[in-house]
Amino acid sequence: MSQINIRTLAKELGLSPGTVSKALKDSYEISIETKERVLALAKKLNYVPNIYASSLRKKRSKTIAVVLPEVADSFFSLAINGIESVAQKKGYHVLIYLTHENFLKEQAILNEFKSGRVDGVLISVTSETKHPQHISELRASGVPVVMFDRVFEDMEIAKVCTNDLESGRLATKHLIENGCRQMAYLSISKSLSITNRRMEGYKKALEDNKLQVLKTNIVFCTNDGGYNYSLIKKLMQRKNRPDGILASVEKLIIAVYQVCRELHLRIPEDVKVISFSNLASATILSPSLTTITQPAFDIGEAAASLLFKSLEKSHFKIEEKNIILPSSLEARDSTK
Amino acid sequence: MSQINIRTLAKELGLSPGTVSKALKDSYEISIETKERVLALAKKLNYVPNIYASSLRKKRSKTIAVVLPEVADSFFSLAINGIESVAQKKGYHVLIYLTHENFLKEQAILNEFKSGRVDGVLISVTSETKHPQHISELRASGVPVVMFDRVFEDMEIAKVCTNDLESGRLATKHLIENGCRQMAYLSISKSLSITNRRMEGYKKALEDNKLQVLKTNIVFCTNDGGYNYSLIKKLMQRKNRPDGILASVEKLIIAVYQVCRELHLRIPEDVKVISFSNLASATILSPSLTTITQPAFDIGEAAASLLFKSLEKSHFKIEEKNIILPSSLEARDSTK
Repeated sequence: MSQINIRTLAKELGLSPGTVSKALKDSYEISIETKERVLALAKKLNYVPNIYASSLRKKRSKTIAVVLPEVADSFFSLAINGIESVAQKKGYHVLIYLTHENFLKEQAILNEFKSGRVDGVLISVTSETKHPQHISELRASGVPVVMFDRVFEDMEIAKVCTNDLESGRLATKHLIENGCRQMAYLSISKSLSITNRRMEGYKKALEDNKLQVLKTNIVFCTNDGGYNYSLIKKLMQRKNRPDGILASVEKLIIAVYQVCRELHLRIPEDVKVISFSNLASATILSPSLTTITQPAFDIGEAAASLLFKSLEKSHFKIEEKNIILPSSLEARDSTK
Repeated sequence: MSQINIRTLAKELGLSPGTVSKALKDSYEISIETKERVLALAKKLNYVPNIYASSLRKKRSKTIAVVLPEVADSFFSLAINGIESVAQKKGYHVLIYLTHENFLKEQAILNEFKSGRVDGVLISVTSETKHPQHISELRASGVPVVMFDRVFEDMEIAKVCTNDLESGRLATKHLIENGCRQMAYLSISKSLSITNRRMEGYKKALEDNKLQVLKTNIVFCTNDGGYNYSLIKKLMQRKNRPDGILASVEKLIIAVYQVCRELHLRIPEDVKVISFSNLASATILSPSLTTITQPAFDIGEAAASLLFKSLEKSHFKIEEKNIILPSSLEARDSTK
């Protein structure tokens, strides 16, 4: 579907583009009746005014947008660096939009991009995002989109991510090899493909080793730090508490360490801990944290490179690209 | 029924449309009597402001920009949350532009804002930024600017920061009270006011306690992590190595901890460490880190509130505002 612009409206209404433009600007030259007709159609067709049209009619905005849930996460801040390393070479600005894990905000942001504010979009969706319709609509308006890390697996769209299932399996196998028999998996979303894939890997590793998958060992955390703390505390106060923890995202790690401290549980003696994380401070935590380290910079770089290919070559079939970059396990004291 | 607009009201009242518009916006230029007449008629005729047309006419982007050196720093990511908490209430988008401590990039970004891409700007300058000319030029083009954290002290511009001098003094006093006699100060810039103010506080505390200020104990780090590591290592390999370290920014802390580990120096027994930092993981480091914690969220919130005041009330003298929010010392094991 092509973008609705003033000319589309004019044609549909049998008016000149100039008249439509003036009507949209509430010009005194235009009758109230005409204005009402124009506004009614604009609303019906979901016309978004292009605020830069006058100065940038033929020029591009030379700007790409990165839509992210948050920046207080080392994966995202490193991915941004990877994206900027490519954008800088191309002479593009990078705008960062934060959704704070709020789906409605994500939707509103993407809707605004339809006006041509940016030339392309890189997105990692919120933990609430269940349907890709807002992304499809943005693409339909002519803006290329690349998803990274938090992607829609079944959507035909350019994607860059890591081998989440294999990494979840590897992390769990590592815990088992270090003596764990009853491990918990901390998720942060029921809908995000990455946490679900990591959980699948966790389950596979248990099955590989003929260990039972217990529903009670799978904990769904949220975006509320206080609530997560109480969930993790409850988990670790159980009679049959887990002897190992796999955290699907790094923001849960501080709570895990603090709960263990509060309950006088020693890491790794009483419970071994591993987390998906790119935390630079992993080596200086007490104890140092075993991590599944994602190639965050490379993921950002690859995603931006795909986007620029599609901006530079209109015949480049971006939606067929699906890049998977492997993560690596870095064993430290927390799983010894 | 035809729509009641500003011109209808103006005609009816014998006023100009501009006066009616200003009256509806509660402008200080309009007398209370006139405002009351306008509002009474607007109510009587059931006037509904046409937001769709008015946003086009005003050409407001409903967007503010936050220009930052980086996001991989807990101060900045918390400050962003403070900014967004205000912007969200006002229905504004927040765009984040990263300068990566590069002055030329900062200059280019600010230059672009002159075209009206955003309605206002919040900025924390790079460690390379020595002159405020690009900021003055942006303001001269009509875009309101608020500086936060990394500000130009002598510039007449709205500023929000913390009590850096007092905090540097407090941190150094804390080291002295815990037995240190020869402390190092790790700076990251020769030009940034915040690190210089913190250094002044450090010097003052030494003088207060009749301790010598040694040039060799003041280390100017850079944005190159590897280089900083070697600088800190050299410092700690000296015969008369310091017995205390005050780091002016949190990104130096990982290097300090790693150097100490490499050189088999124990924290706090051999060297005590304190840092300006909002790291959530400070409590779970080995050992836990004593910090000067800045009110990061509040600084962001205050800066955004100032900006919106100036966007909403054209007579608000924003450049006279200088808000200082105090930091606090959180003593932990690294200075015991």
